[in-house]
Amino acid sequence: MALREITQLTLYGDSISGNCMKPKWTADFIGLSYEWVEIDILKGDTKTEEFLVLNPTGQVPLARWPDGRVLPQSNAIMLYLAEGSDLIPSDSFQRAQMDAWLFWEQYTHEPSIAVRRFLKYYLQHSEGEIDPSLMSKGRRALGVMEMQLTAADWLVGDAFTCADIALVAYTRLAHEGGFDLSEFPAVHSWVGRVERELGLETLHEVTDV
Amino acid sequence: MALREITQLTLYGDSISGNCMKPKWTADFIGLSYEWVEIDILKGDTKTEEFLVLNPTGQVPLARWPDGRVLPQSNAIMLYLAEGSDLIPSDSFQRAQMDAWLFWEQYTHEPSIAVRRFLKYYLQHSEGEIDPSLMSKGRRALGVMEMQLTAADWLVGDAFTCADIALVAYTRLAHEGGFDLSEFPAVHSWVGRVERELGLETLHEVTDV
Repeated sequence: MALREITQLTLYGDSISGNCMKPKWTADFIGLSYEWVEIDILKGDTKTEEFLVLNPTGQVPLARWPDGRVLPQSNAIMLYLAEGSDLIPSDSFQRAQMDAWLFWEQYTHEPSIAVRRFLKYYLQHSEGEIDPSLMSKGRRALGVMEMQLTAADWLVGDAFTCADIALVAYTRLAHEGGFDLSEFPAVHSWVGRVERELGLETLHEVTDV
Repeated sequence: MALREITQLTLYGDSISGNCMKPKWTADFIGLSYEWVEIDILKGDTKTEEFLVLNPTGQVPLARWPDGRVLPQSNAIMLYLAEGSDLIPSDSFQRAQMDAWLFWEQYTHEPSIAVRRFLKYYLQHSEGEIDPSLMSKGRRALGVMEMQLTAADWLVGDAFTCADIALVAYTRLAHEGGFDLSEFPAVHSWVGRVERELGLETLHEVTDV
């Protein structure tokens, strides 16, 4: 299958994936022009011959430029698009703190909160079928965020950064994984703040019901 | 318990942890002066009152400076220490490619290869007790590296970067997790190259036995 030509930055992603939303929201926030190509993971769109030529690991999101460059990994794409914008702290230690949240997100937050949501909401696994450690690990992760967000409005310094974008992606969908954000009031308020910054629908009120 | 005063950069880590070695090797490579404080995870050193004051998540590695700043997350510490050195590409797209490898390391490589090693080598779990998906995921991760390292000497561009340091940390110990690096000859050679850059003992020859 021939690879479709592109004429501008192209973001490949599945709209149900928080990871895929990170580069999209970042591009929207800083006013970057791009084409969005919807990729349906559950229908196997990441395993087609055409997609695997672009990214042999078969993962979205993926960024692609007309000169042939491609870049995988949600947080790496987000950082690259945001470089030079206010989304990245100019202070080098604050940047390091932002990086620490991004790595923590991929290692600790996503594998519990996003995975539980995927199993429960998309694969329709019953509570009994889901590894119980995902709930306890996810709650511990939300507790770490609650500690930070009780003391400050944002995750790093006193400004909205890529760390907030990365962490909100699945935190605002945590209720779909069975987590109750009303137990984490500072996180709950922060989700609303980030949604307002990004101009997103206020999803998290679902957890107040 | 009173927090011990420090007079220079202090790296807290467990020498059996690849994650903890990343900032240490980085500091050694660029000639940074630091004090190493050995933390024994298996003996509970990360759960003491003194350590939890420094890092409430109870994780190593942790970097601490005399002015009170602390920074968690192996890859974030490594990047912060390496800033301005040749370990970070000056080209912004190559830096993004390095970041992509670092996030992939924490999301895909570490949770299979390092976790299997910990279960098998340190917790002495039998093969039957270990989730079989760890072997298949770890082999897929090594396959992704093999593809890159068949085409190039280093993970990013044509230079040794933080991506090589991060990925070698557990790849050189993969045999302790039951992986056979001789099946991945380009990875095997690269491990030796990275070990020579860092002045480390050549551990990977164990897999040739």
